[in-house]
Amino acid sequence: MKPPHIGVLDAGARNSIADVRGVSVGHYTLADGAIQTGVTVVRAHDGDAYRNKTPAAACVINGFGKSVGLVQIDELGVIETPVALTNTFAAGTVANAQIRAALEGNPRIGRDWPSVNPLVLECNDGFLNDMQAFAVEEAHYRHALASCSPDFARGAVGAGRGMSCFDLKGGIGTASRVVDIGDERYTTGALVLANFGRFPQLTIAGDAIGRTLQAQAPEREQGSIIMLIATDAPLDARQLRRLAMRAAAGLARTGSVFGHGSGDIALAFSTAYTVPHDAEFIDLPRLLPDARLDPLFQCVADATEQAILDALFSAESVTGRDGHRRESLNEVWKSQ
Amino acid sequence: MKPPHIGVLDAGARNSIADVRGVSVGHYTLADGAIQTGVTVVRAHDGDAYRNKTPAAACVINGFGKSVGLVQIDELGVIETPVALTNTFAAGTVANAQIRAALEGNPRIGRDWPSVNPLVLECNDGFLNDMQAFAVEEAHYRHALASCSPDFARGAVGAGRGMSCFDLKGGIGTASRVVDIGDERYTTGALVLANFGRFPQLTIAGDAIGRTLQAQAPEREQGSIIMLIATDAPLDARQLRRLAMRAAAGLARTGSVFGHGSGDIALAFSTAYTVPHDAEFIDLPRLLPDARLDPLFQCVADATEQAILDALFSAESVTGRDGHRRESLNEVWKSQ
Amino acid sequence: MKPPHIGVLDAGARNSIADVRGVSVGHYTLADGAIQTGVTVVRAHDGDAYRNKTPAAACVINGFGKSVGLVQIDELGVIETPVALTNTFAAGTVANAQIRAALEGNPRIGRDWPSVNPLVLECNDGFLNDMQAFAVEEAHYRHALASCSPDFARGAVGAGRGMSCFDLKGGIGTASRVVDIGDERYTTGALVLANFGRFPQLTIAGDAIGRTLQAQAPEREQGSIIMLIATDAPLDARQLRRLAMRAAAGLARTGSVFGHGSGDIALAFSTAYTVPHDAEFIDLPRLLPDARLDPLFQCVADATEQAILDALFSAESVTGRDGHRRESLNEVWKSQ
Amino acid sequence: MKPPHIGVLDAGARNSIADVRGVSVGHYTLADGAIQTGVTVVRAHDGDAYRNKTPAAACVINGFGKSVGLVQIDELGVIETPVALTNTFAAGTVANAQIRAALEGNPRIGRDWPSVNPLVLECNDGFLNDMQAFAVEEAHYRHALASCSPDFARGAVGAGRGMSCFDLKGGIGTASRVVDIGDERYTTGALVLANFGRFPQLTIAGDAIGRTLQAQAPEREQGSIIMLIATDAPLDARQLRRLAMRAAAGLARTGSVFGHGSGDIALAFSTAYTVPHDAEFIDLPRLLPDARLDPLFQCVADATEQAILDALFSAESVTGRDGHRRESLNEVWKSQ
Repeated sequence: MKPPHIGVLDAGARNSIADVRGVSVGHYTLADGAIQTGVTVVRAHDGDAYRNKTPAAACVINGFGKSVGLVQIDELGVIETPVALTNTFAAGTVANAQIRAALEGNPRIGRDWPSVNPLVLECNDGFLNDMQAFAVEEAHYRHALASCSPDFARGAVGAGRGMSCFDLKGGIGTASRVVDIGDERYTTGALVLANFGRFPQLTIAGDAIGRTLQAQAPEREQGSIIMLIATDAPLDARQLRRLAMRAAAGLARTGSVFGHGSGDIALAFSTAYTVPHDAEFIDLPRLLPDARLDPLFQCVADATEQAILDALFSAESVTGRDGHRRESLNEVWKSQ
Repeated sequence: MKPPHIGVLDAGARNSIADVRGVSVGHYTLADGAIQTGVTVVRAHDGDAYRNKTPAAACVINGFGKSVGLVQIDELGVIETPVALTNTFAAGTVANAQIRAALEGNPRIGRDWPSVNPLVLECNDGFLNDMQAFAVEEAHYRHALASCSPDFARGAVGAGRGMSCFDLKGGIGTASRVVDIGDERYTTGALVLANFGRFPQLTIAGDAIGRTLQAQAPEREQGSIIMLIATDAPLDARQLRRLAMRAAAGLARTGSVFGHGSGDIALAFSTAYTVPHDAEFIDLPRLLPDARLDPLFQCVADATEQAILDALFSAESVTGRDGHRRESLNEVWKSQ
Repeated sequence: MKPPHIGVLDAGARNSIADVRGVSVGHYTLADGAIQTGVTVVRAHDGDAYRNKTPAAACVINGFGKSVGLVQIDELGVIETPVALTNTFAAGTVANAQIRAALEGNPRIGRDWPSVNPLVLECNDGFLNDMQAFAVEEAHYRHALASCSPDFARGAVGAGRGMSCFDLKGGIGTASRVVDIGDERYTTGALVLANFGRFPQLTIAGDAIGRTLQAQAPEREQGSIIMLIATDAPLDARQLRRLAMRAAAGLARTGSVFGHGSGDIALAFSTAYTVPHDAEFIDLPRLLPDARLDPLFQCVADATEQAILDALFSAESVTGRDGHRRESLNEVWKSQ
Repeated sequence: MKPPHIGVLDAGARNSIADVRGVSVGHYTLADGAIQTGVTVVRAHDGDAYRNKTPAAACVINGFGKSVGLVQIDELGVIETPVALTNTFAAGTVANAQIRAALEGNPRIGRDWPSVNPLVLECNDGFLNDMQAFAVEEAHYRHALASCSPDFARGAVGAGRGMSCFDLKGGIGTASRVVDIGDERYTTGALVLANFGRFPQLTIAGDAIGRTLQAQAPEREQGSIIMLIATDAPLDARQLRRLAMRAAAGLARTGSVFGHGSGDIALAFSTAYTVPHDAEFIDLPRLLPDARLDPLFQCVADATEQAILDALFSAESVTGRDGHRRESLNEVWKSQ
């Protein structure tokens, strides 16, 4: 089954975050009995992330989360590693792996160069995955990084392997939208690690289907969602924070009220330029003024909602720890 | 016509912010040719707002706005005047009126007592109203304050007189939701000053009706929305900020993507206790822990969405400055 | 008497915020019996502030304050009016005056153009000035604006007329510092409205003179300080926020611990470029990278400390409301 | 040599953060050739930190830092592990150790209980220590935790082993101050991991000694400082954030201007009560009102400045990686 198209804007060629030129995604998946987890890596460009930093900003919609790296992004407005996604207990190990990967290309880091800011965003996959086993290893980050490609799998893969969404199987989803602003065409993509929501909240393209099938108030929320936004529009960090905030609109339309226990975090970056390490001056392209950002805000909201649906429609059913099982949306649908 | 009921939770007796005991609302409306504007006042309790301060917090969803008073609320976590709503150019005058009203009851303010923090939230009603006429006077605030009551008008009244919403007539809307948490029943209400959105975005209870009637991407947004949340649940300012953020979820469901030019601001307060001026110690009631807030988050999102619909369904058509006219939703509906 | 030179960096020609080319300052002073107050205006450039907006950012060090305009600066990173300083109860009236001044040059504001964001920063001069008289009128803002010049008075003038600092006479002070970064020379200036501190805290160039003269713990703080930072270095709003934060270092060195009742707010702007209203794109100059900002941080801290001392050394003694009197530092010094 | 006493307030019995009843500190030190680093742990109480959470708040003065755990503290206002300090590259490993330590006492974490929020604050000790060796192991955290005591070493120990401060040997310093507010006596302590500043900035009790000895503008800053504040005053998280901000005042007085490359982060917690995991309601003691916090602000600023001096005066000289050496302040002093 295919999810409905959200909104009136066109998707890019792949309907994926990799429609933003230069962006690539890789996974490493662990799927063996009680271990259902993994790592997903998103790169903003193919070069060295530390030497050519990418303008970025995060928006913490609900801060029940254990992300690594946001304090420095808030101060400096750039990311200097690939973006890593994984399970909550693996954040430290993946951060270590990111530091080591940065050192390989830049052995002066932490000596006469400043240290590097690892960036790891996470969700709690403890329902399906035995997080207490600490199964993710540093090598898994390297494998995910090495496998980055504009063509990548969706659903119950990589960091998404063990995730739950609306009591169904969640995981990795992606989508994109394209708009013209004046004479220029801009592509904006979203990639989500979807692990939030209770079934009665599930809303698909405005249809409160969860409530129809299961008429009750939702119980306590223990999930999370990470929403990555990439755009080729030339924006600075302040403006990217504005884009990141609009992911909340897409998230809300799927039924979320940003539950207490859900670490809902959005991170937006632009591929229009990079900031070189130790430059004398920063040469920026002409930036879009704020008054012309509304079409991009619409792209972010629509692509985020679409990416969440993509995760639900792409994920296969998974059985994990202690026989816990999450059915895929497709399976539930068929059984109705 | 009546708007659909949003969500599965029950409304309070009035389906109004005044279902939260102690809360009252008053309007002063100016409706004469090019002058279509006014003042709305929301009181958290009947006593002196300065001597018994109300715990509160704001969330700036999009900061294209000229509110007065948020810096101090952010620092101290209380409001010490009634909440005033008006048009953008009237904020200074209404702030003056609030200071003078506080002085009447507390002549030591600004002498041996500290000054008072006026709180004015605003939207731009310049399409229907000649804001450049500066028609709102200090006396209008006093009239609105004097008329505060648990029973109050909705729609094109008070600060809502000149407001537009989804290219239709907007204005004041309100709603409430009731939930049990353990053995306690809590009431949470919303009151909005709705002045945002373009018609193609309009979404009513999940139905993207605007897009159906007018299939095009929305143009530039120049509106705003103020969302007030009242609850009788015992919460501190940090928790109230979490509630305020959930108004964004309700707003998003109506079609908003928090447009660039829209000052989207939410303010939440609790009526469960007050903080006395110059107390030796603050005696708090038992607070709800964060892990039990999800039902209140759902109330905020649902009541906010419902209040926006209430504004649209309650407002009558208005003609104002230069013959500009906003049709009511009811009228547009009938003409389809 | 002259204050000691703070730090090792050179001052500009005037040791004033107006050493930053384009910056000018004007005052309007009310000094008659119980009325000891006024308005000070700082312009970032001579042109229309709305049509050519100035990159800026604020830092709220302690938010016990009633400033008008900070929410939008935080979102959009620009100021679009001159910066106005006045007493707490006059903020609304001065905001009105700023709107009207913007309308004069731009009659489309609030019609087919968006509204304008007035920017008023304030301190409580209620010890010397009868704030309850609401003596500041809109015309006073216009007079202060019309009198803007690179050469301007310091001390008990304009908004500084009624201000107290360390229980002495405070008011307007200013200073500047110049540094070379690579081949470029940059000038950074500070202008303060100093109205904070208790005498035992007073520290002049590291000398805790207040404690020496009056050995006791300080009592409750009810003051405030506004610190404006101007620089000709090419920076964006995110970087300017970093500069604004460094004003706190200069403030701390004078003995302040950012007292509870003190609205301590810093605002930094760059004159290196402007952002035109309704531009298609924003063409930026080459920006300084963050790694090269340390000399500017030093300038901000040193110039802020110097500006506070300048206010203390420049102000004459003033007698105001109810015979309240603040001695100048010079007078106190002589009487020791 | 002993540092001068800062300010007019009294210190507690130990002049240490452990003067706040319940607080204890432990170190694990690695000192072998190129490995000069370690772990320091601060406990707010002797019980299980997860089951009885401690009210807390952080203030990011300059966000060039790689701390782990601040996002959730900002949202929820509590810490639920001991506070760990270490070097930048060890943050991930120590976070892992904190998770495992929490699991030992609470095996339901990450299963039917939510996950735990590790809290690791760090500075870059790469000048003396070979951070690239990743010498810190999880066991070192456990050793530091097991050694926690109200009596603990200062200077070049634990996380402070490899730290530099004003180009001298830095490390761990601590201090406390005691004040009466009304009839109650409150103790407030600071513990710093001091790793910031260039020699020409060094200021001891107002004496700009660094500038006197070495008259030049400071070069680029690459350090950091972590400032922990403990108090037995009954405060909520919003108020604790206000306390944390005042650490910036103490820091500034030592000569810092919050350099670009310096991750300057303060974290304040109260021992007056705890928030039980999964409580039905939170029973709070009577809180101090904000208007009575000024004496605590003074304590925070004075204790922080004193703690930085304590680090400088306590640390012994250390030689580490590649023969790099930091002289102690005492040694430099003697050689003048």
